[in-house]
Amino acid sequence: MNSDVLRDAVAAKAAAGLLSSLDSRTKDDALERMASALEGATDRLYATNQKDVDAARALLSAGRLKESAYARLSLNSETIRQMARSIRAVRTLGDPVGRVLLRTELDDNLELKKVTCPFGVLAAIVEARPDAVVQLAALALKSGNALMIKAGAEISHTSGVIVRILQDALTRDETIPREALTNVCGREAVMHLLKLAEFVDLVIPRGSAELIRVVRENTRIPVLGHADGVCHIYVHSAADIKMAINVILDSKTQAPSTCNAVETVLVDRALAGGFLPLLTHALRERGVQLRGCETAVSICGQDIGRVEATEWHTEYGALTLAIRVIDGCKEAVAHINQFGSHHTDCIITEDAVQAERFSRAVDSAGVFQNVSTRFSDGYRYGLGAEVGISTGKLHARGPVGLDGLVTYKYILSGSGQCVSQYIGQNARRFKHEGQSLDYV
Amino acid sequence: MNSDVLRDAVAAKAAAGLLSSLDSRTKDDALERMASALEGATDRLYATNQKDVDAARALLSAGRLKESAYARLSLNSETIRQMARSIRAVRTLGDPVGRVLLRTELDDNLELKKVTCPFGVLAAIVEARPDAVVQLAALALKSGNALMIKAGAEISHTSGVIVRILQDALTRDETIPREALTNVCGREAVMHLLKLAEFVDLVIPRGSAELIRVVRENTRIPVLGHADGVCHIYVHSAADIKMAINVILDSKTQAPSTCNAVETVLVDRALAGGFLPLLTHALRERGVQLRGCETAVSICGQDIGRVEATEWHTEYGALTLAIRVIDGCKEAVAHINQFGSHHTDCIITEDAVQAERFSRAVDSAGVFQNVSTRFSDGYRYGLGAEVGISTGKLHARGPVGLDGLVTYKYILSGSGQCVSQYIGQNARRFKHEGQSLDYV
Repeated sequence: MNSDVLRDAVAAKAAAGLLSSLDSRTKDDALERMASALEGATDRLYATNQKDVDAARALLSAGRLKESAYARLSLNSETIRQMARSIRAVRTLGDPVGRVLLRTELDDNLELKKVTCPFGVLAAIVEARPDAVVQLAALALKSGNALMIKAGAEISHTSGVIVRILQDALTRDETIPREALTNVCGREAVMHLLKLAEFVDLVIPRGSAELIRVVRENTRIPVLGHADGVCHIYVHSAADIKMAINVILDSKTQAPSTCNAVETVLVDRALAGGFLPLLTHALRERGVQLRGCETAVSICGQDIGRVEATEWHTEYGALTLAIRVIDGCKEAVAHINQFGSHHTDCIITEDAVQAERFSRAVDSAGVFQNVSTRFSDGYRYGLGAEVGISTGKLHARGPVGLDGLVTYKYILSGSGQCVSQYIGQNARRFKHEGQSLDYV
Repeated sequence: MNSDVLRDAVAAKAAAGLLSSLDSRTKDDALERMASALEGATDRLYATNQKDVDAARALLSAGRLKESAYARLSLNSETIRQMARSIRAVRTLGDPVGRVLLRTELDDNLELKKVTCPFGVLAAIVEARPDAVVQLAALALKSGNALMIKAGAEISHTSGVIVRILQDALTRDETIPREALTNVCGREAVMHLLKLAEFVDLVIPRGSAELIRVVRENTRIPVLGHADGVCHIYVHSAADIKMAINVILDSKTQAPSTCNAVETVLVDRALAGGFLPLLTHALRERGVQLRGCETAVSICGQDIGRVEATEWHTEYGALTLAIRVIDGCKEAVAHINQFGSHHTDCIITEDAVQAERFSRAVDSAGVFQNVSTRFSDGYRYGLGAEVGISTGKLHARGPVGLDGLVTYKYILSGSGQCVSQYIGQNARRFKHEGQSLDYV
């Protein structure tokens, strides 16, 4: 066991107690100091980052690192400015702590409030991206949580110096403890941290599906899991054909490697004969490879390959699209719930009743009508910063913003009330006066 | 492996798809049929229940069943009427499905709604209490979830017949599938069910801490966990002494075996000398055994036993109370966060600033001021029915009502928008017009 990690987790838990009580102004001032400190430390950051870049270049030459990963770990004056901007963007968001979710007057002078509060200690495991370290540090502070962060080994020097710079900036206000932010190094330390359920309240893995699987299998701490994306567009018989083609093109080609890109298009048999040739022509013009069910192949001929039976689960993450001809909304829903990843699924239709039925029955974090699946994103939803996209159903679902980093507590303020007063003959009766919520 | 359980889980998942689309009226009509059916089947219920009662009487005689457990598994005409009343009480609650939690206009004709929806399939593991089976069946239907329920083996005949009666009542409306409700029998079947993460969305164990531990260790499905209760009352130096004594008496003696009864009282040193003799006198008059720290013992003398160092974690669940003299709010918070169970903790004070500090810093589902800890309860909070009390931080915390049985999805309705329109030169800009939330 790694005694440093235990000691750090105990210290982070103690820090969390202090962080939960910080007012918005104190946190926002600290965020501004964090941004300025990064801008003021450009030379130091650049020099330290060179050690990681040099090592990464060797990995790149040896074919053990992708070009895209290499590009993301290198800092320059623009990426450093961008990190400072991302902190200031978090600063401008509303404070997620202290929001009243429900307020009920139980009786005279007896008021119940359900109020948002921090989780406590977050453990984040992120890719080899300096900007991810900075963004999570900003989100954690804004949400009043202590953060223990492990970045990809390829940026160990860079993440170490970033954390030290941010710690120094934070603690210039004495009410903020240095342990608000801790750098965790090494796989062994992370595996130990995942066992410390007494001190760590939430684990946030960001990265490959494999990373998330390993984390889930090695911890009893709640995991805010991020997404596979097998997204669908269902072209209903009452679709606007031109809209359907536009939306599918955007959903597939605008950024094909993202988790909210579409992977499978379902088409009602009633319009398949006329629609599919138009669709496949437009897709092939954009370089999309097509795969289809038997009916789609028979309509489109050699333009389209035959889908394997096991293929409907596939997240291509590339300019490849699967097409299936089906019989109506019920079959579309069944396909999506069976083969999808509960991320984002869309119906194209002018029929409001069908759209409503689809939105009720599809078991996904995002259910769309007549709009590109690529809108499934924290920024586009107006959540401000995004922690990730959750396909789990507990706590946070879909794009997770600052709200995903807080939980709530019930605060009851009375004037000496006892339960015995509310029981038996002549008992007081509860008033339970509060607000009610809006329906769809 | 138990193939019946797999088949039942697949069928429950299919039923969940239908249940999620039921309107409120259909669900409420079904609940009324469920209540009437139980009332109309009194003789059948009574006769079947006798088999369980006879077997339980033998266990009771052999000392293998508690008197209280025996009492709870026997049905009579009043308990059957009470079960029907509990279903009708759920019927009168608002529909938890389809509530709009957030509504944002992203752009013209592009509206985002965050809307509550059912989890899908719930697996409940409950004690040998017929009323618990009935209550969960009602809550599951109201929240649009399919329910697979395993009751304590001591009521296997009774739970079987209850489920059949409720299934018959449900399916008199053809839109409701029989698999909305499934009786699960036997420990082996439950252990198998806990592995079926693809079909079961949420596990709800109700019963002993041991049961909940076993469930957590044997599943990757999210668990809505219920509570240990090590609750505290902190008597601050600015407390109203009379109020403090009243509230402590109610919190300890009104129902000492419940999880929201107080177990430890923390007293500021400044008032300990005058306050403790009054408090211990009042408690001893009600038959409460006292345990204390060294200072408390030195003040109260032989009226009070010495607490062991490891004892502060203890949930007595009986007329026993621990008392500790401390130095101020910070020490009280540290004690509570270290030794408590994050259930419900209270400060007695007339000082609003201290109360606010306490409510921010205590890491519990319920943080109270000047009111008995026994108010920590779904009925008293005005939530209607209660599924249980959660000390976890994810999803539902504190008393969990119908709202704990729903999650949410994002529904985005557009008119053909593509993300490419919002990127680059001359890009459209998001409006993000919505509501903001209230602060404390």
